[in-house]
Amino acid sequence: MLSDRMLDVPKSFIREILKVAADGNIISFAGGLPNPDFFPIEAFRVAADYVLKNEGAEALQYSSTEGYLPLRQYISDRYKKNKGLEIDPDEILITSGSQQGMDLMGKTFLNEGDEVAVEDPSYLGAIQCFSMYKAKFHTIPLHEDGIDIERFAEVIQNEKIKLFYTVPNFQNPSGITYTDEKRRQVTDILRGTKTLLLEDDPYGELRFIGSDVPPMKTYRSERSIILGSFSKTAAPGFRLGWLAAPREMMEKIIVAKQASDLHSNYFCQRVLYRYLLENDLDEHIETIKEAYGKQREVMVEMIAKYFPEEVSYTKPEGGMFLWATLPKGLSSLELFDQCIKKGVAFVPGAPFYANGGGKNTLRLNYSNVNAATIEEGIKRIGETMKEML
Amino acid sequence: MLSDRMLDVPKSFIREILKVAADGNIISFAGGLPNPDFFPIEAFRVAADYVLKNEGAEALQYSSTEGYLPLRQYISDRYKKNKGLEIDPDEILITSGSQQGMDLMGKTFLNEGDEVAVEDPSYLGAIQCFSMYKAKFHTIPLHEDGIDIERFAEVIQNEKIKLFYTVPNFQNPSGITYTDEKRRQVTDILRGTKTLLLEDDPYGELRFIGSDVPPMKTYRSERSIILGSFSKTAAPGFRLGWLAAPREMMEKIIVAKQASDLHSNYFCQRVLYRYLLENDLDEHIETIKEAYGKQREVMVEMIAKYFPEEVSYTKPEGGMFLWATLPKGLSSLELFDQCIKKGVAFVPGAPFYANGGGKNTLRLNYSNVNAATIEEGIKRIGETMKEML
Repeated sequence: MLSDRMLDVPKSFIREILKVAADGNIISFAGGLPNPDFFPIEAFRVAADYVLKNEGAEALQYSSTEGYLPLRQYISDRYKKNKGLEIDPDEILITSGSQQGMDLMGKTFLNEGDEVAVEDPSYLGAIQCFSMYKAKFHTIPLHEDGIDIERFAEVIQNEKIKLFYTVPNFQNPSGITYTDEKRRQVTDILRGTKTLLLEDDPYGELRFIGSDVPPMKTYRSERSIILGSFSKTAAPGFRLGWLAAPREMMEKIIVAKQASDLHSNYFCQRVLYRYLLENDLDEHIETIKEAYGKQREVMVEMIAKYFPEEVSYTKPEGGMFLWATLPKGLSSLELFDQCIKKGVAFVPGAPFYANGGGKNTLRLNYSNVNAATIEEGIKRIGETMKEML
Repeated sequence: MLSDRMLDVPKSFIREILKVAADGNIISFAGGLPNPDFFPIEAFRVAADYVLKNEGAEALQYSSTEGYLPLRQYISDRYKKNKGLEIDPDEILITSGSQQGMDLMGKTFLNEGDEVAVEDPSYLGAIQCFSMYKAKFHTIPLHEDGIDIERFAEVIQNEKIKLFYTVPNFQNPSGITYTDEKRRQVTDILRGTKTLLLEDDPYGELRFIGSDVPPMKTYRSERSIILGSFSKTAAPGFRLGWLAAPREMMEKIIVAKQASDLHSNYFCQRVLYRYLLENDLDEHIETIKEAYGKQREVMVEMIAKYFPEEVSYTKPEGGMFLWATLPKGLSSLELFDQCIKKGVAFVPGAPFYANGGGKNTLRLNYSNVNAATIEEGIKRIGETMKEML
């Protein structure tokens, strides 16, 4: 009875893991949750109060599929100010989180069997989403400075890649960031091809080490789409993100959005805009960065202290995740089973590999755990690793 | 570059019409908007304030794909109380409006070329949505008491219908309601078949004449799915609806939802639940019904007074729409063009016919216009009809 597209979708192993990790007695590095201590709860309360007192009838009504214009203008202005990118509000669509941005890209552009290039490992939500459109994946190995550029050039040259999906900043799951050079190389290879470049950037604003690198869209504006999100800078519960695409694509993407859910939550779009108007988002982001930066520092220190030296790991310059690799032949799933018994959880890396592999890798989240907990949890994982070796 | 699915989707003519009708000088019966005078703005403000003061950190965080359990429990309890239906909270998924419910049904069950039966006319959003899954439509003529049952039996017997989509109460666009007898006939015909029965019921609570008729799911619970919505009873800006499906289907539908947008706006789920806890929804619905009932009465009276007698029309027992049919050969699109010049708008009926036809029909919305405006608008349309005849 099911559609064929449901048959290929990897079961969300992570859903199961998060259920296990939700047990209050377990130290969890498994989730991908921002730290709720930094949700602007009181400022949102003031903004919601304002919206309902002053513009309730509009905010609670149906609205346009594109989204609230002042919010799209804000995003447009911010691209100009922070990235030097000229993106008109008409080229911005408000989405229900950046997950929906991926889904709309799939809906608008992918036919069964279309070839999609992804990083290896890649964001699991993207793998699931494009699987539903029955995409064929080509995986490009990932290094500390971005994808393996030779393999990428080969794939682009020899295959008919319709879309390349990348998380260039503080990637989920690996935590790595593309260097400026690597970004230029990627766009050089794509120039003149028909391949869509889909840059997913939910973490880009959360850099605590080094300095910002321009989006790839800077170097190749045609056929380039950026996904953004307020989930990591403001709060995920609103489910508000955006998709920025060239004008000529936008009409069709809007039709896909309309058929999907008419439009995103309009009340929260207005509350969020009011919040952005009355508060300094940059200042707020500074607070988050300071905290995550410290947590990341503690995690890296504790890994150095407790993990066996055969285990390698990334040192993220921002975002929420760190990636560890066990010596070949060791299974992170087996490690997971042992660690759960010791009351600590992470996400085994295999599901992030679209075409298999990665059985010796694991993802560690540091955004939602305090320093003392990080020390205790990493210590337990390190001990378990040593027992396995 | 586009996916094939985008090529078949009817352009939303209604989007264009709503833009014209948005001109403040035009009397519009074109939209499908609830009357914002009845949005519970102050009660929502109190609820939002409570949620942010007492459970802000939870409400702003990521949440489960299924949706907020107490809200699903509320919906479950309400089905039991109002309809005598036993639907467990586990069989309810919170969606971003019932439009998303349709999309998830398409995603989970429809392959290219799968056959879908729809009423003729049918809800445009459903036609668009299923078009995206490249469904093949079979249209069943609609009478005042529901679909043409002989034609329906024929289609179910002779074709491989994967899904039958129906709006049994105060249908959009026609305003008609299935009698209990017709519902039993429909389910008798479906019994023993594999056809999914998708009952979309956004208006069911807004009955101002006659008494409630049981959902079709009452007579055939297996393979039956109901879509519901808070858009017409509370407010559409929250984009909150639900999908109720048998347990064995739910797991796959949840995977489709997760790949689409992870979960619906969690903050608003909690605000809505708090509102429902502290307020009497039935009492609130009474107020809406009283107002819409009066507006519907005025519209029917004014049509009797001003429309030429060659024009037939439905007399809805609830909901927001009324349907008029011009004598054969006359074009409602031409009528629309003339009416716009006189400052009044409606929606020509043709786009609601999945396989063409209906050029002499039109939809009139009465939920968002007051009595004096209805009189003036219907008078102008009536005069224009007389000129055309």
